[in-house]
Amino acid sequence: MVKNDYYLVDSVDLQAFTISVFQKLGFSSEHAKDASEVLLAADLRGIDSHGSARLTGYVRLLKKGRINPTPKLEIEVETLSTATLQADKSIGLVSAQYAMNLAIEKATTAGSGWVAVCNSNHFGIAGFYTMMAAQKDMIGIAMTNASPLVSPTNSKERLLGTNPIAFTFPGGKYPPIVIDMATSAAANGKLEIASRKGLKIPTGWAHDKDGFSASNANAIKEGGSLLPLGGEAESGGHKGYALSAAVDILSGVLGGGGFGPWVPPFVDFLEPKHTEHGAGIGHFLGAIRVDAFRKKEHYFGAIEAWIERFKSSTPIDDDNPVLIPGEPETKMHQIRLKEGVPVISAVYEDLSEIATNLELDSIPYSKVITQ
Amino acid sequence: MVKNDYYLVDSVDLQAFTISVFQKLGFSSEHAKDASEVLLAADLRGIDSHGSARLTGYVRLLKKGRINPTPKLEIEVETLSTATLQADKSIGLVSAQYAMNLAIEKATTAGSGWVAVCNSNHFGIAGFYTMMAAQKDMIGIAMTNASPLVSPTNSKERLLGTNPIAFTFPGGKYPPIVIDMATSAAANGKLEIASRKGLKIPTGWAHDKDGFSASNANAIKEGGSLLPLGGEAESGGHKGYALSAAVDILSGVLGGGGFGPWVPPFVDFLEPKHTEHGAGIGHFLGAIRVDAFRKKEHYFGAIEAWIERFKSSTPIDDDNPVLIPGEPETKMHQIRLKEGVPVISAVYEDLSEIATNLELDSIPYSKVITQ
Repeated sequence: MVKNDYYLVDSVDLQAFTISVFQKLGFSSEHAKDASEVLLAADLRGIDSHGSARLTGYVRLLKKGRINPTPKLEIEVETLSTATLQADKSIGLVSAQYAMNLAIEKATTAGSGWVAVCNSNHFGIAGFYTMMAAQKDMIGIAMTNASPLVSPTNSKERLLGTNPIAFTFPGGKYPPIVIDMATSAAANGKLEIASRKGLKIPTGWAHDKDGFSASNANAIKEGGSLLPLGGEAESGGHKGYALSAAVDILSGVLGGGGFGPWVPPFVDFLEPKHTEHGAGIGHFLGAIRVDAFRKKEHYFGAIEAWIERFKSSTPIDDDNPVLIPGEPETKMHQIRLKEGVPVISAVYEDLSEIATNLELDSIPYSKVITQ
Repeated sequence: MVKNDYYLVDSVDLQAFTISVFQKLGFSSEHAKDASEVLLAADLRGIDSHGSARLTGYVRLLKKGRINPTPKLEIEVETLSTATLQADKSIGLVSAQYAMNLAIEKATTAGSGWVAVCNSNHFGIAGFYTMMAAQKDMIGIAMTNASPLVSPTNSKERLLGTNPIAFTFPGGKYPPIVIDMATSAAANGKLEIASRKGLKIPTGWAHDKDGFSASNANAIKEGGSLLPLGGEAESGGHKGYALSAAVDILSGVLGGGGFGPWVPPFVDFLEPKHTEHGAGIGHFLGAIRVDAFRKKEHYFGAIEAWIERFKSSTPIDDDNPVLIPGEPETKMHQIRLKEGVPVISAVYEDLSEIATNLELDSIPYSKVITQ
């Protein structure tokens, strides 16, 4: 079988499978459903790296005991608009959702709500949580730190994760504006794709282990580092470093999670270091009621004007129109909800192996697309 | 006189002069003092573009009636943790300070405080307001939109300002971590310096008016645009666009300020467009009590470990150590507080002209440094 085959899977079947897997591994039915929804959202929105492709990784961490399937989520500190959640080694997909619901609840009474989560694990796509807020006419903000791959400006050490940050702004009569971005210049996945294709990578994506600009797509595997957004200092890389630092501090330092080089790795074959500082991965989630600032209809009028003006902006090239953040993913969501999710064969095989090991039926698919 | 002469001015004299200017132009003594402090902080921290160098610009806008010297600052909407401030055409230096004090007050009771400001003007360095929060053991966040110079990815129109965002994190026994960054790849000032020196600019800073990569340092003057942080899309420019959009929406759309192309220009010789959407420039300020998330001493222990680990990171080049955001500016502040602020001759002459026009004594200086 060629590597680029796809199995077309109905989203209902894909979610049902994911729920069964989490339940088999000890999740409550509620937690299994919550976790499955974050992965499904990634698969539907076309963020394939963060959907069911990650299930194998989560399963391995669960089997190793690094993710706790029955966490006791506890609020450690609380004010009218803030809280810190002790996630008890929960999968991030569950703890971050719990935290965003808490942030939304606080925003309902206090205007805004902000929840830091410590002792958590990988939380999938940050945009999922911010979209939860937008459904309640709130602006959602979400961020997480991650295991170190990115070097600060001037450094040859990996001290920061790709530390994503997301914002969702309710769009009125339009779909919400969904910003969901790693604070590194490029995702590691982009280097992996270049590596498979035998391509060089552009300046500004990565350094080799000695801190020199890398054109070799295997730079990270060979001890190099990803660069923060902006790339080299000349092109603004120090800003990406600062932004990534802000995400690390809000996600880790503020709530008692791990931070910097002490954030535990996502992959099961790397053991977490003796954690000198903080516990697990940290997240930070916020919800802001738009009508805590102005009348809802005034906000909607303004955001609709914003969307219309940017969408109608004169493009450089007529074939590449100016996009509203999240627009391609919203379109993809509609298509895949109707036509199914194309699961790449390597991932489908991994999922089938999980099915076999857990004595589950493998996922039904409507057809195989060969490319 | 050569262009690169500097007048060395004691910071007390510089501030006294700025206060007198604002008072002569109708500010209350309290507002004059508030405004002068933001400019002085920029001059002391070495952010010369945003200190007394801007005074002439403010004076011109005051004389044109575009800045109101006696604004009535009013809270339009309010919840436990949020507020919107109608700035009544105030100088941003005053309204943003008022707003941050309100955010701090709300954070004291609600854990966090968030204030949107509409109908305001240029607010100087964003970092000033975030440092106010840090003095109260709070994390400060500040942002503003600005007149359009930056093109969204794929667009050849200027729709966004350099839209800065700032964070200050209390540093425990160390100086606070101060992040204060434009969300464009490079500031317009950098192009002006390159233009004066006859240098080309690197890829990723700007486009010409047709949307092609510009190496010409006069690109902006000739109708081109600055690029968002990340530069071209390949190197992550769409992320900078999204980040700048988030700043624009939080600063402008949320609180009723102008947004996108409708943000009024800072320079007095460009008339504001007929404002179709929102009023004036918008800001967004936030304060988060660190002990609304964990015990203060635990936060301090963790942030000190963060600072120590990053500061001791192995540099690529021993002559360029890894810096903590804000570190160079904090050092500069200490030096200039003691030795004086070097005011470039062109700026000193502008200030002397203001002095003559307003019948004020010109600023004393200790010596002229010729370079």
